[in-house]
Amino acid sequence: MTVRGENLIGAQARRGTQAAFRAVEAATGNTLEPEFPGASLDDLDRACALADSAFDTYRETAPEARAAFLEAIAANILDIGDDLVTRCMEETGLPRPRIEGERGRTVGQLRLFAGVLREGSAFQIRIDPALPDRKPLPRPDLRLRMLAVGPVAVFGASNFPLAFSVAGGDTASALAAGCPVIVKAHPAHPGTSELVGRAIQKAVAASGLPEGVFSLLFDAGQSIGQGLVADPRIAAVGFTGSRRGGTALMEIAAKRPRPIPVYAEMSSINPVLLFPGALAARGEAIGRAFAASLTLGAGQFCTNPGLILAVPGPGLDAFLASATAALRESPAATMLTPGIHRAYCEGVARLSRHAAVTQLAEGPEGTATQGRAALFATDSDAFLAEPALQEEMFGAAALVVRCPDLAAMRAVLERLEGQLTASLHIAQEDHAAVRGLLPLLERRVGRILIDGFGTGVEVAHAMVHGGPYPATSDGRTTSVGSLAIDRFLRPVSYQDLPDALLPAALQEANPLNLPRRLDGTLERR
Amino acid sequence: MTVRGENLIGAQARRGTQAAFRAVEAATGNTLEPEFPGASLDDLDRACALADSAFDTYRETAPEARAAFLEAIAANILDIGDDLVTRCMEETGLPRPRIEGERGRTVGQLRLFAGVLREGSAFQIRIDPALPDRKPLPRPDLRLRMLAVGPVAVFGASNFPLAFSVAGGDTASALAAGCPVIVKAHPAHPGTSELVGRAIQKAVAASGLPEGVFSLLFDAGQSIGQGLVADPRIAAVGFTGSRRGGTALMEIAAKRPRPIPVYAEMSSINPVLLFPGALAARGEAIGRAFAASLTLGAGQFCTNPGLILAVPGPGLDAFLASATAALRESPAATMLTPGIHRAYCEGVARLSRHAAVTQLAEGPEGTATQGRAALFATDSDAFLAEPALQEEMFGAAALVVRCPDLAAMRAVLERLEGQLTASLHIAQEDHAAVRGLLPLLERRVGRILIDGFGTGVEVAHAMVHGGPYPATSDGRTTSVGSLAIDRFLRPVSYQDLPDALLPAALQEANPLNLPRRLDGTLERR
Repeated sequence: MTVRGENLIGAQARRGTQAAFRAVEAATGNTLEPEFPGASLDDLDRACALADSAFDTYRETAPEARAAFLEAIAANILDIGDDLVTRCMEETGLPRPRIEGERGRTVGQLRLFAGVLREGSAFQIRIDPALPDRKPLPRPDLRLRMLAVGPVAVFGASNFPLAFSVAGGDTASALAAGCPVIVKAHPAHPGTSELVGRAIQKAVAASGLPEGVFSLLFDAGQSIGQGLVADPRIAAVGFTGSRRGGTALMEIAAKRPRPIPVYAEMSSINPVLLFPGALAARGEAIGRAFAASLTLGAGQFCTNPGLILAVPGPGLDAFLASATAALRESPAATMLTPGIHRAYCEGVARLSRHAAVTQLAEGPEGTATQGRAALFATDSDAFLAEPALQEEMFGAAALVVRCPDLAAMRAVLERLEGQLTASLHIAQEDHAAVRGLLPLLERRVGRILIDGFGTGVEVAHAMVHGGPYPATSDGRTTSVGSLAIDRFLRPVSYQDLPDALLPAALQEANPLNLPRRLDGTLERR
Repeated sequence: MTVRGENLIGAQARRGTQAAFRAVEAATGNTLEPEFPGASLDDLDRACALADSAFDTYRETAPEARAAFLEAIAANILDIGDDLVTRCMEETGLPRPRIEGERGRTVGQLRLFAGVLREGSAFQIRIDPALPDRKPLPRPDLRLRMLAVGPVAVFGASNFPLAFSVAGGDTASALAAGCPVIVKAHPAHPGTSELVGRAIQKAVAASGLPEGVFSLLFDAGQSIGQGLVADPRIAAVGFTGSRRGGTALMEIAAKRPRPIPVYAEMSSINPVLLFPGALAARGEAIGRAFAASLTLGAGQFCTNPGLILAVPGPGLDAFLASATAALRESPAATMLTPGIHRAYCEGVARLSRHAAVTQLAEGPEGTATQGRAALFATDSDAFLAEPALQEEMFGAAALVVRCPDLAAMRAVLERLEGQLTASLHIAQEDHAAVRGLLPLLERRVGRILIDGFGTGVEVAHAMVHGGPYPATSDGRTTSVGSLAIDRFLRPVSYQDLPDALLPAALQEANPLNLPRRLDGTLERR
C-alpha cells in the first residue's frame, strides 16, 4: 500500500488544496515523501455533510453488523502488513517491537468493542411495561435505549500512532456506539494515518455502509481541527494530546451555539508513592523497575511516572542508587518529533536550573533527536511552594520529592492536580498508611495501582484511563477499555409506541437479543 | 413544624446575616412570615467545608445504609404532615391535590433510589482477574467501580416545589450516588424549602451520617448560587430553571480552574405533531386532551405542549374547535410567582402583536395573579422565518403552526432546537409518515411519545427527562428516573490491590452482594 498524501473524504481520496507538509523521519529529522497538502474548508464541509447524512443509517445498523465492521477494520489493518510498521517506525522513531505490539493492541481494541456490541449491555435497554390499571393514574409503556450522539471528531495522539490515532480507542468506541467519525490526522505521523484511514475506508465500502461513516483530514495548521469542533454537525470530540491543545478545543466546544462534550486526555505526572516498608524491603528493585518504566518508549507515555514521593532513609537511598545507576546506563532514545524533543530538552534544562532542585542522574548522550533520561530531586516544602514543579515534562524525566514524613506526602498529594494514575509501592506494614491515603487518591486519579507503574494500560473492561481535570477534560469517563463507548451514547425514551414503530432494540420480541431490564431488573435469559 | 427563616448548615440552623426576603403568597401577592435573611459567604464556606469533610465517609457508606437514609428522608417529609402542604400551597398557588400528589412523587423518588442502591447495578462493578501466565505480558488484576464525584450543588425549580427542589430528583440521585448536597433554596418557596430541609437534616442525624451530607442556603440575590458553583469543593451542579439561569451557571462552571459538569434542565416547547390520520379520526378528542394538558398546573411544566404542528384540513379544524372551546372555558389559574406571571403576560402580549400570528383562543379573565390560557396560530413559513417564535412561554400558551404538508412539518422540526419531548398523535395510516420522521425526532428530543402529552413525567427506570441542548445543558443524561444517578458517578480502577485494601464493593468475597461483571460478563448469582 502506498502513501499518497490524500485526504479521505467518504469514499473519495482527494488531494488537499491548502498548505502542504511532510512527515519528518524521527531519527534523522529528514522529511519523508509524499507531500500532504492540507484539506480545505470545503473538504471539511463535505466530510461533515457526509457524516451527518450517514448518521441515521449507521446508528441503526444492528450490533452484529457494526461488530463485523470493526473486525473488518482490524483485518484490513493487519493486511497492510509491514508497510504500516516501517512507515510508522520512520515517522515516530519507535522501535519495531513497540509498533508491532501497538498494532496488536489496536486490533485487539477494535475486537473488544465488537464483543461489547455482541454482548449488548452498553445499550442499556430498559422497559417499564404499561400498567393500565394503576391508580390514581395508569402508567404508560416506557422503553429506553442508549443512542449514538452523532458524528464525532477524533484527534489522534502523537505518542500512540496506532492505538490512540486514526483507528485508535476514540474511533473504535465512537464507531461502536454508532457514530460516524471524522479524524483530524496528527501531523507527526501522516503516512501511518493515511494507511490506517484507507483500511477503514475499505471496510466501510466492503460492509455496505454509507461512505460518510469515516473521513480523514490532513492540515498543517489548526483551521481544520478548530473548524471540525465548531461545526454544528459534530456532536462530540475525542482528543489525546497536550493540555494547551485540549483546553483550546474545550473552549471552542463550550462557545458553540450548541455546546458539545469534549473528551480530552491531556496531562498527568502520575505520582508514585514509595512507602517506608516497601522501600526498606526492596528499595533497590523498585528503583530498577522505576527506571525501566520511566524510559519505556522514550518516556512518551501519558502514564509515565513523573513524580516520586518518598520519606528519606536507607530504603530511599537504595531506590535512588539503583534508579540513578540504571538511568545513567539507559540509552538515549529517539523522540517522536523535533518539537517534542525540543520541549523535553527545555523542560529538563529549566528544572536543572531551578534553585530548589538537584539533578540526580542523566542518561548517556545520544543523537540530536534523542532524549536523555533525567532524574531530579527536591523536597516537599519546595514542591508545595512552586506550582510549576508539577507541570508535565513529556519524556523520560522525573522528579523525586523528599517528604519528611507521611503527613508531608499527604500535603503534596492534596496540592496535586487531577491525574490519570497513582502507583503505590507497599509492604504489609504499610497497609494502615495506605488505607489513610486511599480516599485522597480516589479523588485525584482514575486508576490506583499497587507495586507497579502506570505504563502499560490494559485494554479491558475494568480499565479507567481517565481522571479528574486536568488529566482529562471530563473525569466521568475513560478513553481506554470497554467503558469508553459510554462517552458517545445518550439515552432516549419511547412512550407508548406501537411495536411496529419501535426501533428493533426495543421491540417486544427482542429481535436483536439484547440484555434488557424489565422494571429495573435484568431479564433472565 | 415551624418555618423559622434559617439556613441549615450541617447540623446547625443559623439565621443569615445578609439581605432578607420573604415568601410571597402566590394567590394574593402578599408577603408571608417569616423573614429569610440571606446566607453569608462565610455560611457558604462553612457548608462547603462540611460537605467536603463528609464526602469520604458518606460515599463509602454501604448501599443499604444510604438506601435506609433516603427512606428516612421520605418518612420525615411525610411526617411534616399538613404544615408542608399548606405552606407549599400558599407559596406556589398550586392546589392541594397537586401538592399532595407531588409529595407522593417526591417520596416515591427517594424510595426508587433506595431500590437502585439495593439492586446495585449503578456501581458498575467490573472485575478482570489477573492472568499471570498470559504471553507476552501477564495481565494485572483490574477492578472498576463507579464512585461519587464529590459534593453537589442543587438549585431547586420554582415549578416543582417538592419533586424538583430541596429533596427532589437532583438531591435524591446525588445522595444515592454518595455525594453530599448543598441546596440553594429557590426564593419562590423558601418555607417549603426549609421544612423539607429540616426533614433531611433530621435524617442525616438519625442515620449517624456526618453533618456535612446536607446543607440548605437562602439568598435573595445570586451571590450564594454563583459562589457555590465556583467553589473548588463543589464537583457537579444540578439545576432546573430558565435558560438564562442555566447558561449562566454553565459559564461559571466552565471558567473554573477545574471545570465541573452542570446538569441544567432549561427550556423546551415540546412539539406536538398531529398526523392526518389521527386528526381525521379523532381531531376533536385530541383537541380536548391537548387543552387539558396545556392548562395543567397553569401550564407551568417543563414538558408543557407549547407547539402544535399539523396540516390544515377538517381534522385540524375539529381539533382547533374543541381546543379553543375548552380553553375558553378553562379557568385562569394562579401562577407560581408575580415574576412568572408578568413574564407570561408579556410573552402572550408579544405574540398577540406579532404580524404573522393570530390569536385563536383566550381563557377567561382571572385575578391579578392568574394566568389565562392562550392559543395562537401561524404558518410554517412564518415560523421558519422567525426564530423568536420558538422561545418558551412559561405558562398555558401554545402556538399552532399550520404546515401545508408533511414536508413543511419536517422543515419546522429540522429548525427546532433540542427539546425534552415530542408527542405524536397518529393512526395506523400515519405509520409510514411517522417512521420517516422518527430519526429526526430522535436527534432532537429525549422522549418520544405517542397519543399523549409530555406532561406527567413518570419516575421510572426507562424515563428520560433530558434532551439535546438547550433543553438541557448535557443531553447525555436525564434528571428524572433511576438513570439520573449516573450523573454523579465517575469510574475509578484499582489494579493489583490486596483484597484487604480494596473498597468493600470490589473485594473478592463481594460483601456488599453487588452485581459484578467478570471479564465483561455479568456474574450468575
